[in-house]
Amino acid sequence: MSSPAFPTRRLGVLLVVSGPSGSGKTTLCRQLADAGEVVYSVSATTRPARPGEVHGRDYFFFSEPEFEMKLAQGEFFEHARVHGNLYGTLKSFVKQNLENGIDVVMDIDVDGAAQIRACDDELVRRCHADVFILPPGVESLKERLANRGTEDGETLDLRLKNALTEIAHWPEYHYALVSGSRAEDLERFRSLLLSERMRVGRQI
Amino acid sequence: MSSPAFPTRRLGVLLVVSGPSGSGKTTLCRQLADAGEVVYSVSATTRPARPGEVHGRDYFFFSEPEFEMKLAQGEFFEHARVHGNLYGTLKSFVKQNLENGIDVVMDIDVDGAAQIRACDDELVRRCHADVFILPPGVESLKERLANRGTEDGETLDLRLKNALTEIAHWPEYHYALVSGSRAEDLERFRSLLLSERMRVGRQI
Repeated sequence: MSSPAFPTRRLGVLLVVSGPSGSGKTTLCRQLADAGEVVYSVSATTRPARPGEVHGRDYFFFSEPEFEMKLAQGEFFEHARVHGNLYGTLKSFVKQNLENGIDVVMDIDVDGAAQIRACDDELVRRCHADVFILPPGVESLKERLANRGTEDGETLDLRLKNALTEIAHWPEYHYALVSGSRAEDLERFRSLLLSERMRVGRQI
Repeated sequence: MSSPAFPTRRLGVLLVVSGPSGSGKTTLCRQLADAGEVVYSVSATTRPARPGEVHGRDYFFFSEPEFEMKLAQGEFFEHARVHGNLYGTLKSFVKQNLENGIDVVMDIDVDGAAQIRACDDELVRRCHADVFILPPGVESLKERLANRGTEDGETLDLRLKNALTEIAHWPEYHYALVSGSRAEDLERFRSLLLSERMRVGRQI
């Protein structure tokens, strides 16, 4: 009797995460990465390395001409200039992991997430899922922003306005994670990874 | 400042589960139902109630004419005749729960799952996700079937053949859960429910 094909191998999950400041998205990504469940996507940047930062771990550090050349060669999924420095996500890093069945989390803003969503690379389309992490309502958002302090010099009103502008994009994502306790958030976030690993379209 | 719409309410998840005999699918469904996380879909049947069985809990018990009338009125998602008795899933029961944000699990065979997948009811389409639970390979399947005994009088060879015929359908499902330990299976199964609850298409 010949046996039907059982799933034997799978591609990695590319889990893209967005959310306003104070949503806890970076912590959630780090927790999964620290547990060895995913690889945290390392960004490339033209900003100089700070003491202690390591090329390939914290960032891929490139000179402006290097970054521009890679950009011209289509080596970035998405990029943006922030405070004069270029930031972006290298395709090669992400795709190598996905092909090897290694899950990648990527913590990017709504513009970056939209660029990844529009990506026409077949591997990326198969592996991609995105989630928006948001507070249960405006009052809770205000509290979280207030607790976060004002280290970036923006007023609370401006930060609230920016956060609400970002939050308006949640319906564009596959999933919306409405924050509860930290433990609940981590369980739900991890469940996205576990379930996306089982998606038939990623089995080989 | 006007606030963007936050998700405030969601539809229930309709999680349809199939898998060969011995896959543990019924146990997984019961575990989630016993934990109060989901409602187990109650089937309708024309077979007589056994002692202790309760209408509305174990089955909806109908006479053959009652069942046929409901069938003619399109009140079933799916139905089949097994050993002379009719079995089916009532739309009203499932849809009421989904509309109220209550998650429903449904343990049905590949034919029933295909009928639900082809259902053109908009609510069902929005709420529906399905998973096939399968052993890691043929050897493991043989062991599970052998351990299950032969209470239904089929030979092991026939049961293996039937199981392999069912398993060939896994690529038609959204998710494939390849069995590991019981604890792993429950965690993965529950993660499907948690993540599908977050799906943007089910938020209101």
